[in-house]
Amino acid sequence: MNSHNYCIIMAGGIGSRFWPASTEKKPKQFLEILPGHKTMLRVTYERFMDIVPAENILVVTQERYADMVMESIPELPTKNLLLEPYGRNTAPCMAYATYKLLKRDPEAVMIMTPADHIIADTEVFNATVKQALDYARGHEALITLGILPDHPDTHFGYIQATGGAIDMDKAEPLKVKTFTEKPSEELAEVFIQSGEFLWNSGIFIWRADVIKPEMEKLMPVITNLFVGWEGAIDTIMERDFLQKAYAESLKTSIDYAVMEKTGKAWVIPAKFEWHDVGTWSSLYAYTDKKDAKGNAVIADKCLIGESDEDFIYSTEKGKLIVVKGLKDYLVINTDKVLMICPRDEENTKGVITQIALPGYEEFR
Amino acid sequence: MNSHNYCIIMAGGIGSRFWPASTEKKPKQFLEILPGHKTMLRVTYERFMDIVPAENILVVTQERYADMVMESIPELPTKNLLLEPYGRNTAPCMAYATYKLLKRDPEAVMIMTPADHIIADTEVFNATVKQALDYARGHEALITLGILPDHPDTHFGYIQATGGAIDMDKAEPLKVKTFTEKPSEELAEVFIQSGEFLWNSGIFIWRADVIKPEMEKLMPVITNLFVGWEGAIDTIMERDFLQKAYAESLKTSIDYAVMEKTGKAWVIPAKFEWHDVGTWSSLYAYTDKKDAKGNAVIADKCLIGESDEDFIYSTEKGKLIVVKGLKDYLVINTDKVLMICPRDEENTKGVITQIALPGYEEFR
Repeated sequence: MNSHNYCIIMAGGIGSRFWPASTEKKPKQFLEILPGHKTMLRVTYERFMDIVPAENILVVTQERYADMVMESIPELPTKNLLLEPYGRNTAPCMAYATYKLLKRDPEAVMIMTPADHIIADTEVFNATVKQALDYARGHEALITLGILPDHPDTHFGYIQATGGAIDMDKAEPLKVKTFTEKPSEELAEVFIQSGEFLWNSGIFIWRADVIKPEMEKLMPVITNLFVGWEGAIDTIMERDFLQKAYAESLKTSIDYAVMEKTGKAWVIPAKFEWHDVGTWSSLYAYTDKKDAKGNAVIADKCLIGESDEDFIYSTEKGKLIVVKGLKDYLVINTDKVLMICPRDEENTKGVITQIALPGYEEFR
Repeated sequence: MNSHNYCIIMAGGIGSRFWPASTEKKPKQFLEILPGHKTMLRVTYERFMDIVPAENILVVTQERYADMVMESIPELPTKNLLLEPYGRNTAPCMAYATYKLLKRDPEAVMIMTPADHIIADTEVFNATVKQALDYARGHEALITLGILPDHPDTHFGYIQATGGAIDMDKAEPLKVKTFTEKPSEELAEVFIQSGEFLWNSGIFIWRADVIKPEMEKLMPVITNLFVGWEGAIDTIMERDFLQKAYAESLKTSIDYAVMEKTGKAWVIPAKFEWHDVGTWSSLYAYTDKKDAKGNAVIADKCLIGESDEDFIYSTEKGKLIVVKGLKDYLVINTDKVLMICPRDEENTKGVITQIALPGYEEFR
């Protein structure tokens, strides 16, 4: 494995679409909801151990989640835990990680990945990422892995490649023509028909010394906050510096701030099975632990009858969940909240806002 | 109030159709589920305080529920708490209460009542019970209060009176022709059309010295167990005696053992509004604490949206219940069990038996 290859796992999100299982105190990436009682963060970490040296895997998260990261990855060296004072979306996070990495290794090639993806075909995934790392090393390319859409999903960003319909068998890096955030279903349908579009996986690969000037050109409002901080990196001054920078930073995504505007965006068509486990609905679609009637159950004790395609999730120890005659529902039960709603609810926490009366702030 | 009038409240049932809120450890009559956070037992007790002297109200229950009775009715004299070693349905309970009362007062006229009825028209109720007490005092009559059916309910017993269609305005005591336990819907429909039938309320009124020989004639297998125990009543020997008698007793109801067979059954047509709160469904029908969409909520904190006619009941302190897009469901949540099922489920505990795998005995 090339010692200049790095993986940065972004694990600072609060997973509000997974409420009430995921809360600001313990977001979804730290929940043991995957087979083998593993956290999403742990599974992500193990995935990249095949691709980059273990000592080159870094995790960026919010300060308050530091302990939970170390619970998931006890072997993570402290210096590889990058702590943001608070969440400001992916653009400031990218700037922080890039500056830090560049100081440690000017030849760094970086993978930036979310912590909530499920990827089934490990070999194809590994080969694709390695191809991207190699391409990025030799080119001034900001690469995204693009997933072949199999339905007109309206929750993903779409990337249009140059050169007409994409040849998935070749799977060669393609220059990006356009980025489109979450289109309407009609538009998504047109995209798919054209054969020129891929889903934006949110997994980025690039050289640190290529993304740095591009960030400074396209999002100076954020990178200016980091001016003069090279001296503070990896010293006791780092924390104070970040506090100030983050306090003044915008909340914005790297997609919006850089990828949609840069002339250096590339996409590599990827053929592995990929799930963005961003919602209960997507976790349900992914999980293979369903009974004959399509019910997925993650609970100590559950009895379910005359019910189809429900997703039951309970973290209360020893509690018996009994469900009868329910179809296509989510039942999420924690010590503090019980939520019952249709399974396709996209934003479970948002439900509170839809129906709450004053006095429910504490649960938001 | 006549000092020879007594009321015996039967509060020994385990309320399995109200599971999981009602458990063998704390059956429904001890739950504070009625308006004003009163228990069903308390409401029953207060109802009869208008009719018989307070010191003439007795409660029969199982030994293990003694503390819960005293919590509901702290003013109950200890000697008025009749403790059965365990539940054996109403026939042994009647024998126990009758023998005890006769020893204390040979002229006793008794009301025997369940603890889980809701009665709306207090004045009509009081007048009807007083009429029954007066009639019982002067006649060898075993009287049941009969409710005018307003729909062909299949969960009640039906009583046919002699003399053809019943004149509700007269509301005079009528000799009983037949008792029919829980008929089919077709049969119930025929009963109602005939105008000769009333629902069996399970509230009985009779003289102690009239029911005694009738029990001894019609259910000697049970009354024989009490032979020789007059000397033990209200002494320290009582408990040991009951232990032996109950250990050998059949489990059977007074309806089956006496009322269906006696030639002395009478019914008084009653015009008060009456609910047998035997199931969640019936409690839902009764409760007036519904929102505009017909949802009834008994819970610390609950948000409910896009939902109709649900019954939400939670005893977990401080827990937020969020329900969206659910119609006609029961959501019952306790520390140990969460149950979600259609609201018309007649026997919630039975659901476990329908869908349980081995290992769920503890929750039955």
